[in-house]
Amino acid sequence: VGEIGVAVVGPSGLVGREILDLLLTRRFPVGRLSLLGSARTAGGTIEHGGTTHRIAPLGPGVFDGLDLVFFAAGPGVAGEHAPHAVRAGAAAIDTSSRYRLDPDVPLVVPEVNAGLLSGRRARGIVACPSAMAVALGVVLAPLAAAAGLRRVVASTYQGAAGAGRHALQRLGQETAALLSGRGSEVRSRGLAFNCVPEIGAVLPGGATAHELQTVEETRRILADPALALSVTAVRVPVFYGHAASLHVETERPLASEDAHEILRRAPGVLLHDATSQGPTSLEAAGTDATHVGRVRRDPAVDHGLALWVALDAVRKGGALNAVEIGEILLRERAASPG
Amino acid sequence: VGEIGVAVVGPSGLVGREILDLLLTRRFPVGRLSLLGSARTAGGTIEHGGTTHRIAPLGPGVFDGLDLVFFAAGPGVAGEHAPHAVRAGAAAIDTSSRYRLDPDVPLVVPEVNAGLLSGRRARGIVACPSAMAVALGVVLAPLAAAAGLRRVVASTYQGAAGAGRHALQRLGQETAALLSGRGSEVRSRGLAFNCVPEIGAVLPGGATAHELQTVEETRRILADPALALSVTAVRVPVFYGHAASLHVETERPLASEDAHEILRRAPGVLLHDATSQGPTSLEAAGTDATHVGRVRRDPAVDHGLALWVALDAVRKGGALNAVEIGEILLRERAASPG
Repeated sequence: VGEIGVAVVGPSGLVGREILDLLLTRRFPVGRLSLLGSARTAGGTIEHGGTTHRIAPLGPGVFDGLDLVFFAAGPGVAGEHAPHAVRAGAAAIDTSSRYRLDPDVPLVVPEVNAGLLSGRRARGIVACPSAMAVALGVVLAPLAAAAGLRRVVASTYQGAAGAGRHALQRLGQETAALLSGRGSEVRSRGLAFNCVPEIGAVLPGGATAHELQTVEETRRILADPALALSVTAVRVPVFYGHAASLHVETERPLASEDAHEILRRAPGVLLHDATSQGPTSLEAAGTDATHVGRVRRDPAVDHGLALWVALDAVRKGGALNAVEIGEILLRERAASPG
Repeated sequence: VGEIGVAVVGPSGLVGREILDLLLTRRFPVGRLSLLGSARTAGGTIEHGGTTHRIAPLGPGVFDGLDLVFFAAGPGVAGEHAPHAVRAGAAAIDTSSRYRLDPDVPLVVPEVNAGLLSGRRARGIVACPSAMAVALGVVLAPLAAAAGLRRVVASTYQGAAGAGRHALQRLGQETAALLSGRGSEVRSRGLAFNCVPEIGAVLPGGATAHELQTVEETRRILADPALALSVTAVRVPVFYGHAASLHVETERPLASEDAHEILRRAPGVLLHDATSQGPTSLEAAGTDATHVGRVRRDPAVDHGLALWVALDAVRKGGALNAVEIGEILLRERAASPG
C-alpha cells in the first residue's frame, strides 16, 4: 500500500483528535493530510506529529485527490459533505449519526461485519455505530453465532465523552464546584455525582431517541432486524468509559463455561475472568479493547446469561472503529487496484 | 399513644443519625432516649434535639424498660443484642443484613406488607430490607397485584452511602484528589468517576452475594418465593441516591397508561410523568419518596414494561423505613395494649 491522501473533517473534536492520534500510533500510511472544518473552526491550528496543521474550510474542491476522508463532525456536516467526498473519488467514513440507519450505507464494526467492506460498496460512505452499539455488536455477535439470541435487555452506564468535549468539561467543572463549596446549588439534573436516566429527547412512547437508535443500530450490525432488544440508556458521572449490564436469553442452551470460551476467543474482546471482579469504566478508558466480565448464568430464565461490557467511548466506541475501517479499505484497495 | 422508651444502637453511623433526625422531625413520641454503641463508639457524644447525648455501652440491662430499639449497627451487633432487647420486652427493628433472610423474622416494607406487623410478631424482631430491595418492593408490589410478574430484570446504580460513611468520605476525597491533580494515580477500581460492576464478594457461580440477597429479599417482600428476578448490582460515583433500571414482563396485559395510573396511586411512590425526564439520583437524595419514572411499554416482549426507580439509600432505603415500622408498632400497641 503506497502513501495515501487522507482528510479528517472536524479534527478538533474528541473523536477527530483521537483519529489523528491513532493515524500516527498505528502508522497509517498517510501521504498528504488535510484537516477540514466548518467556518467556525477553520483557520485554527492543531499540533500533530510534530508539525502545526491549519484547519482549512470545507468547500468546493477540498476533497480532490484524496483517498480517504474521516468525518468526525456532526450529522449536518456529514450529510452535506460526505457525498462530495465520494464524488471526488474518496471513501468517506462517518462517525456521526447521519448515515447509521441509512439502508444504502453499511454500518460497520470490523470484528462483526467487515465483509460489508468488500467490493464496490467500499467506494462510497461507511457509517460507524454509536459507542454503545459498537459494544453490543462486539459482544453479542459471537453469542448469536454460537447459540442464537432470543432476547437481550441492556441497561447502560454512559460516560460524558459520548456527549462531546463540552460535556467532559462540564462534568469536571460541576464536580469541582460542588467539592469546593463554590456550587451555590446542586443542579439536580447536572451530571456531577448524579445518574441521569435519559440521553436525548424522550419520544411520545416514552423511550428516548437514543435508546431506539441503539436498538436499530445493533439490529443492523447483527443483521437481525427483529432482534428482541430492550435498552435503557443512562448517563453516569464518568469521563470516557461506557458500560452496560446485559441480560441475554439465547435460543439454544449455552453453558456459562462455553460462553466464557466463546468470548475469550471473540475478536476485539478482552475477557475478565468470572472469578475476578468485572471491568470498571476506568479500566476500559484509554484502551482499545471491548472489555467483558461478570459472565455468569442467569438462573431466572431458561438459557439465561448475564454479563457486563465496558469500552472507551471515544476510542473503540468512535475513533478506533473508524480507523480500523480505514485500514480494511486500504487493504481492499491494495487487493483490487483501480 | 403515651411517650415511650426508645434506643438507637449505632447512633453515629449514617442510618443511626438519620433515625435520630427522623424521630425528631416526625414527632415520634420519645419519652426516654438511649443511645447505645459498641466498645469502640461508647463514650462519644451526639448532639440531638438541642441536647448532648452520651453513647452508652451495650451490655446487660441496657434494654430494661425500653419499648422500641432501633438497631443501626452491623449484623454482628444485631445478632448478639437484638434477642436481649426482645427478652427485655422491647420490639427490635434491625436495619442490618442479619435477619433479612431469617424465615422467623418478618422483612417489612410498610407500603407492601405492613400486615406482618399485626399481632404477636410485632413483639419480636422486625428486619428492614436493603435499600435496593425496598425500592424493588415498593415499585413491583402494585404491578404484581395488578397484572402478575412473569419476569423482572434489574440493573442497579447504587451510590456510595449504601456502603456506609467511610465510602461517602472516600468518594469525596478520591474525587477531589483527581480534580486537584493530587491523585498521583487513578485508582481504576476506586469509585471516583467510575462504575464498579460488583458489590460484595463474587460467589462461585459468578453472581455477587449482594445480588443474590437482593433477589431473595425482594422475593420475601413480595411473598413470591419463585419470582424470576435477575439483578446486576453496580456501584456508581454518587453519594446518597440509589437507582435501578427495571425491565418487567407481567403475566397479564398491562397498558402503559394503566401502569402509570397504578404507580401514581401506589403508596410511597412519587411518579414522574413519562413525558418529563426521569428522576435522577440527586432528585431522590434527601427525599422520603420512592421516585419512579421512564414508565413505558417495552415492545421487545409481550406484556413488557420498562421503568426507572430512584430513592435515598439512607432515608427510605434505611432509616425512614425503620422509623415507619416503629410508627406502625406504636399504633399496634395502642390498639391492643398489654
